[in-house]
Amino acid sequence: MKLARLGPVGSERPVVFVRDEEYVDVSDVTADVDERFFAGDGIARLRPVVADRVSRGAVHRLAGERIGAPFARPHQIICVGLNFSDHAAETGQAVPAEPILFTKSPNTLVGPNDDVRMPRGGEKLDWEVELGIVIGTRASYLASPEDARRHIAGFTVVNDVSERAFQMERGGQWLKGKSAETFNPAGPWLVTPDEIPDVRSLGMRLDVNGTRRQDGSTATMIFDPFFLVHYISQFLVLEPGDLINTGTPPGVGMGHTPPVWLRPGDVMDVAIDRLGAQRQTVVGPR
Amino acid sequence: MKLARLGPVGSERPVVFVRDEEYVDVSDVTADVDERFFAGDGIARLRPVVADRVSRGAVHRLAGERIGAPFARPHQIICVGLNFSDHAAETGQAVPAEPILFTKSPNTLVGPNDDVRMPRGGEKLDWEVELGIVIGTRASYLASPEDARRHIAGFTVVNDVSERAFQMERGGQWLKGKSAETFNPAGPWLVTPDEIPDVRSLGMRLDVNGTRRQDGSTATMIFDPFFLVHYISQFLVLEPGDLINTGTPPGVGMGHTPPVWLRPGDVMDVAIDRLGAQRQTVVGPR
Repeated sequence: MKLARLGPVGSERPVVFVRDEEYVDVSDVTADVDERFFAGDGIARLRPVVADRVSRGAVHRLAGERIGAPFARPHQIICVGLNFSDHAAETGQAVPAEPILFTKSPNTLVGPNDDVRMPRGGEKLDWEVELGIVIGTRASYLASPEDARRHIAGFTVVNDVSERAFQMERGGQWLKGKSAETFNPAGPWLVTPDEIPDVRSLGMRLDVNGTRRQDGSTATMIFDPFFLVHYISQFLVLEPGDLINTGTPPGVGMGHTPPVWLRPGDVMDVAIDRLGAQRQTVVGPR
Repeated sequence: MKLARLGPVGSERPVVFVRDEEYVDVSDVTADVDERFFAGDGIARLRPVVADRVSRGAVHRLAGERIGAPFARPHQIICVGLNFSDHAAETGQAVPAEPILFTKSPNTLVGPNDDVRMPRGGEKLDWEVELGIVIGTRASYLASPEDARRHIAGFTVVNDVSERAFQMERGGQWLKGKSAETFNPAGPWLVTPDEIPDVRSLGMRLDVNGTRRQDGSTATMIFDPFFLVHYISQFLVLEPGDLINTGTPPGVGMGHTPPVWLRPGDVMDVAIDRLGAQRQTVVGPR
């Protein structure tokens, strides 16, 4: 199933895509795709509703509506740093012995095609295509990576936008360079695991102004998605609807010589096999 | 005004304390002290209600009920690292040129007298008395520290509990050692700024098993509360109800030679002038 949310910022309604441009409205079944929805086994409840509506032809065609993030603002966004050995190398950092975790402010979440806004004073805006994991059920002290599977609601495309000067040159921790508004485009869909034969073998691509900048695969992750959920659950409690950004393959702007930074007017095309495609335009500061 | 929340975990009701052990129930005015409450100018709406109820004698006496955190789980908990020069020295780290920011998972929030639970595998559990700032209105790109004043709903006592091995010895960022469940006792009250003559001059104390371990003052903060809110708002958007833990004075367990770590059965007494007192017992892992 491909869950999505359509409509203006702040009043998106939940739908389920049944073909690339066609969807079933489920806003009468659940008000939102949020913590309560996941905790109440919302995905399982939607399945028969969607099947019934498809059989009755209650299918709508996407007609220029904004696509929001496919789930509501989560309780937390946890990110994994340097999870591809080639990406670690290009940033001049060692391959980590265990996952590096950091966070983004949850209100960075925006739709897949929304503008990405430069923060005031930002000079080193950068891109990162990432596989996003959305948690389905509360996860704490999971016994094994295998055990993590049943806690995952689905997967999505994320652009983990960064301001490298804020991240690296302003003291201490990475949060400062990861949390400006619009810094977490997600979607278009939240794709349930049954639609993905192997999440550990999905091509990942990011173009800037038509030039391919990242061309990787989830196959080269150091720590795979199931290990990550298991690992994170040893340190904190994951809530339904929480988002985990699992790290980016090589090709970020910081990795080029000289570095390549985003400027207003630049267009990013971001895609992962089976999870859909995004397009964001960079705009100047407020 | 001293807002608080009374009752069992997950079903606390909002009240306003009018004396140390006496409160007015306001659960008919607002269902919770949360983002929506603050954004809707809830504190201003409560004032005449409380005055009226006090004048009518509708005051209750605290009778063994659990005191919850004085506000609901926030959108984010942002912490400031090494914000007291003496504390930076005791941890062997340099005084930062600008504030160090990190986060805790919001679901670490518990009541002021709830148990603090050791995480599984935890060996270096530590304490940190801190002044907590609760945001009242959305704050982004504030023009000055002075401008931050009107975005602050109030102040509270926080114990920023840490697992130092997870924080320092498990790679990269501090999140891992800050986010275990129960790691953020807060309260007993959210005290509005009008009740505090100078938030930059409040004594802060933490005892472990009756031994004074921290004995500081907000007067020795490197970056004061108003500067911090102004500063953080340059990097991310603060939402109503967000919590900022502003850093701890000297005397943490890590700062002793040899270090002193908390063990099951230990009792922490935590207090800040005008903001009330907490008492937590350490319990073993789940």
